[in-house]
Amino acid sequence: MAVTLNRRVDYPMIDNANIAYYPRIYDLAHRFFEECWEEMCGKSYPEMIMQERLGFPVVNIESNFLHPLRYGDIVTARISIAKVGTKSCTWQYDFYNQNETHLWSSKQVTVCVNMDSLNPIVMPSWIIDGLRNHLQ
Amino acid sequence: MAVTLNRRVDYPMIDNANIAYYPRIYDLAHRFFEECWEEMCGKSYPEMIMQERLGFPVVNIESNFLHPLRYGDIVTARISIAKVGTKSCTWQYDFYNQNETHLWSSKQVTVCVNMDSLNPIVMPSWIIDGLRNHLQ
Amino acid sequence: MAVTLNRRVDYPMIDNANIAYYPRIYDLAHRFFEECWEEMCGKSYPEMIMQERLGFPVVNIESNFLHPLRYGDIVTARISIAKVGTKSCTWQYDFYNQNETHLWSSKQVTVCVNMDSLNPIVMPSWIIDGLRNHLQ
Amino acid sequence: MAVTLNRRVDYPMIDNANIAYYPRIYDLAHRFFEECWEEMCGKSYPEMIMQERLGFPVVNIESNFLHPLRYGDIVTARISIAKVGTKSCTWQYDFYNQNETHLWSSKQVTVCVNMDSLNPIVMPSWIIDGLRNHLQ
Repeated sequence: MAVTLNRRVDYPMIDNANIAYYPRIYDLAHRFFEECWEEMCGKSYPEMIMQERLGFPVVNIESNFLHPLRYGDIVTARISIAKVGTKSCTWQYDFYNQNETHLWSSKQVTVCVNMDSLNPIVMPSWIIDGLRNHLQ
Repeated sequence: MAVTLNRRVDYPMIDNANIAYYPRIYDLAHRFFEECWEEMCGKSYPEMIMQERLGFPVVNIESNFLHPLRYGDIVTARISIAKVGTKSCTWQYDFYNQNETHLWSSKQVTVCVNMDSLNPIVMPSWIIDGLRNHLQ
Repeated sequence: MAVTLNRRVDYPMIDNANIAYYPRIYDLAHRFFEECWEEMCGKSYPEMIMQERLGFPVVNIESNFLHPLRYGDIVTARISIAKVGTKSCTWQYDFYNQNETHLWSSKQVTVCVNMDSLNPIVMPSWIIDGLRNHLQ
Repeated sequence: MAVTLNRRVDYPMIDNANIAYYPRIYDLAHRFFEECWEEMCGKSYPEMIMQERLGFPVVNIESNFLHPLRYGDIVTARISIAKVGTKSCTWQYDFYNQNETHLWSSKQVTVCVNMDSLNPIVMPSWIIDGLRNHLQ
């Protein structure tokens, strides 16, 4: 089941064409991604990073930019898991605006690493279980 | 033929895992993209935007993150055109570091729009010609 | 009377020393600034910009960085008006973390401009009144 | 004697009023600051951070925003040292555009810290000497 989160499109996201500058859509996605962890796996991303020393760098991303994000829009993100492996998982992001227009979809493969070595590691079972509960 | 450009990985690109935060790799790609126009089509991107009122928003991106970008790295970007249509074209980005390690590859489809209406338009022939000269 | 707002320190704010990269503290201040308008003057900042065509660029800033902003901190901003002129006003920002540690103070002079010409203009009375209601 | 450096105003710096979003002027200043170290003290900032484990967080900033930074401008930064203490020093930044219009001035106090503890430390003599050679 998807996690649903909302954030406003703030002024710094917007470029001089009056739409979100596209790298900042990925930045917005990462801010939503951070917020997911508490709901998905019962631990905040700051705790994951600082206490567990686990990080989840992306290795592959495919994205479709379907409609501009405008200043003042409220973005609703639906975030689910497309696939869970032992060391990696695939995230599915879909963004909508306040009129339910589909803005953006993105499939992102992340690998679980130790934050000190950056080497891939097998995900602990409590993470695998949490992610599996949010399969599409 | 590819355009080749270089930029340093500055401190603000780096996150607390000591590697580039991935949305800022897209931001770096955009800064290279801007620099390409003079060499590819004989006009700077500021002139394209402000005088010609032409913009090139992305509609689709596929990316592979092959190796971390580290603080102090010199990134060499090789940028070529994979396909030229009438209203859109496809860009191929490949980033390498000072050790010739392949860092990042990305295929990006951009649509030519009028900057005021954001409606897609047929690219002028001098742009199509310039892009075709940089086909892979 | 001050407006009080809260935001989390997200991962992209943090640098590799594990504290907020200081230009992003100004960015955070701007995001709070945007949120103030509805409460102070009854109109959202997107409406100010897009409908009223009014903007408020800064001309002078003095800031003290008192304590690091850490990843996962909840920042409480207290924002009040130090002075109201006819074309400009002075904002006072104070940021605190979840332990009530004073993180940052900043005094910022902004000028009211027309967004098309960027020329300074006399602020409409409903703005002056709203700002005066939030004098320190 | 001042260090003089140049950088282009890239598209991501610009907001929808077609001028640089002010927190990104501080970000630009930091990118210039990084570049100074090699010329001032004979060591790159990546080496300072990663090998020497020295950092220079700001504790106080005063800035005047004199003229907008426009897309495509070439910013010339003149950077000198206003004061050298034992644990801190004061930087003076002045930005000009290609027409020699004074854009921005900023006085910034930075403290020398160990990057692991973030505790202030006495600056090594080779740093103090390098900074003193660039007093105004």
